[in-house]
Amino acid sequence: MTSIPPYLIPSRSAKRAHYDPAVLHSILDEALVCTISYSVDNMPFMIPTAFVRHENKIYIHGSVGSHFLREIEKGIPVCISVTLIDDLVVAKSAFSHSVNYRSVIIFSKAEKIEDFDLKTAAFEWLTDKMVPGSWEYLRPMKQNEVNKTMALAFCIDEASAKIRTGMPKDEPEDLELPIWSGLIPVSAKKQAPVPDESSAGIPLPKHLRY
Amino acid sequence: MTSIPPYLIPSRSAKRAHYDPAVLHSILDEALVCTISYSVDNMPFMIPTAFVRHENKIYIHGSVGSHFLREIEKGIPVCISVTLIDDLVVAKSAFSHSVNYRSVIIFSKAEKIEDFDLKTAAFEWLTDKMVPGSWEYLRPMKQNEVNKTMALAFCIDEASAKIRTGMPKDEPEDLELPIWSGLIPVSAKKQAPVPDESSAGIPLPKHLRY
Repeated sequence: MTSIPPYLIPSRSAKRAHYDPAVLHSILDEALVCTISYSVDNMPFMIPTAFVRHENKIYIHGSVGSHFLREIEKGIPVCISVTLIDDLVVAKSAFSHSVNYRSVIIFSKAEKIEDFDLKTAAFEWLTDKMVPGSWEYLRPMKQNEVNKTMALAFCIDEASAKIRTGMPKDEPEDLELPIWSGLIPVSAKKQAPVPDESSAGIPLPKHLRY
Repeated sequence: MTSIPPYLIPSRSAKRAHYDPAVLHSILDEALVCTISYSVDNMPFMIPTAFVRHENKIYIHGSVGSHFLREIEKGIPVCISVTLIDDLVVAKSAFSHSVNYRSVIIFSKAEKIEDFDLKTAAFEWLTDKMVPGSWEYLRPMKQNEVNKTMALAFCIDEASAKIRTGMPKDEPEDLELPIWSGLIPVSAKKQAPVPDESSAGIPLPKHLRY
């Protein structure tokens, strides 16, 4: 734990911080999008994007014409944020309200993926993360599609998670008040698929039957 | 439209960009958390936090001891990002996969709220946004609770939204393939409240009956 840099230690609620890769990975694997920030002349910029974790890296993709990707592919410092909201934490006072969340912050620099096979693998991981089991079912990716898509990898060695779970922590003198307190779960859930008109009559494949 | 600074115009999919305050507000009012980034010596930092929009500002709060708040209360440039994910957009090829999303990016600087009444109002707006109708029901906020909480406001005049809606846009030659395409809705929904043990026997108030 002595190797944790100071900017990975929260100034508040430090007991909510986690550095175990298994904890980081579970949050990264559940979140569909991350938000990436970078600075130009100390002016911060941000962009949300889909991503996938594979081993100790996360991978993003986009058009080779993207201004954002062309800025960060240079290897400038980036900060990557992932946030899952689990519950609204409803207390007996506004002051004790909170949110149950699982978040990850990563400090990293982009590595541009030039290798065709690794790039294709990254697209397979990303596709199978967004829609598990779909890569094998889809029309295979074409060489020119791989070529016109950029893929960047980010090592996640410098990262921390912050997690709040459980019930509200009301002030002791508030506990007897006849005011309802508890949790309101607010997680994102997959709902029934809606077919495109080009797919009328095509059976829903097994991997999409939630 | 000539007054839009270049960093608010996306380099890709510019037709997805929106600057209408009503569109920006609807996204900001639906999202529970934003992510704020700022730079120190060109190193980007980020933190997710709850927020509320009121008129043309957003408000955040936190402990007066928060390192993050003390850094940005100085009025350094910040970038604020909000992302709502509506659907996974499942195409017949991996290349045409997408995500339906509504996102907002704001460029701003913090104004620290020193006025007691405005600060209390900001906490009321925030509480009633997270749990609509709850402020009047809760144990009233105490003066020392207001004093030990910092509130910051951010003007949202420099902001843009980016929105994707609708079905996948498959390549014309793929449309006849017998591969299922369509949308998988993935929105966050409030679920049945779970009472704390201190609230056993306390009726669920009307504003929490979803």
